Amino acid sequence: MFTNVEHIGIAVKDLSVADALFSTLLNSTPYKHEEVATEGVRTSFFKINETKIELLEATRDDSPIARFLEKKGEGIHHLAFEVDDIRAEMARLKAEGFVLLNEEPKPGADQKLVCFLHPKNTHGVLIELCQSIRE
Amino acid sequence: MFTNVEHIGIAVKDLSVADALFSTLLNSTPYKHEEVATEGVRTSFFKINETKIELLEATRDDSPIARFLEKKGEGIHHLAFEVDDIRAEMARLKAEGFVLLNEEPKPGADQKLVCFLHPKNTHGVLIELCQSIRE
Repeated sequence: MFTNVEHIGIAVKDLSVADALFSTLLNSTPYKHEEVATEGVRTSFFKINETKIELLEATRDDSPIARFLEKKGEGIHHLAFEVDDIRAEMARLKAEGFVLLNEEPKPGADQKLVCFLHPKNTHGVLIELCQSIRE
Repeated sequence: MFTNVEHIGIAVKDLSVADALFSTLLNSTPYKHEEVATEGVRTSFFKINETKIELLEATRDDSPIARFLEKKGEGIHHLAFEVDDIRAEMARLKAEGFVLLNEEPKPGADQKLVCFLHPKNTHGVLIELCQSIRE
């Protein structure tokens, strides 16, 4: 089940510049910064009610965010939904014809297991499914 | 004050096709359809927890959604935040150097007063402020 719009991911060139701007916009401050080495990104998180804004800066030239910035420039990169059972949702969506970009849930930022859906089947929107890792 | 991620607006070519896909994706159905003649759009709304997904189809060739689709193709069009006092937020953000696309709040879909911020000052993200119209 889809239970929440967990976050909106925004690709930015310079995280410190974007942190300052979004702090002014939202009249808030990032509650954390985190690097995800496997994805080649440095992130910061703001929270508004139950949804987060995740700013993403590339840490290397071959990271997905670097390629996105080169192709499309700064802007919204993905839309993430919290699900209650990521494996069940992955199986359901695969059976419905959606294309999973990873066949197994993988670790993402913010203590999550994540799976991305190919945007060619979702009206150009890169969709992330995520589920909190319960320790 | 920014109180919620109110909705994410997604530009689509064909609303009935997109309605079917997002119904399958979210395992839900749109709770309403609405045409905003002044903006040249037909919309549908899904709700997940406290945030909505708004699908937007152009109803004429000169609508902002038609121009967006022509330039960028389907995908996320804007990010809307609920604010408690839209005039106060517009004044605050204008003083901070953000560029308002409308100087007065205007009626949007879903019983809202809205204001858009120019994406050139917000890392490529078209931001909407919205406040419910209280009868």
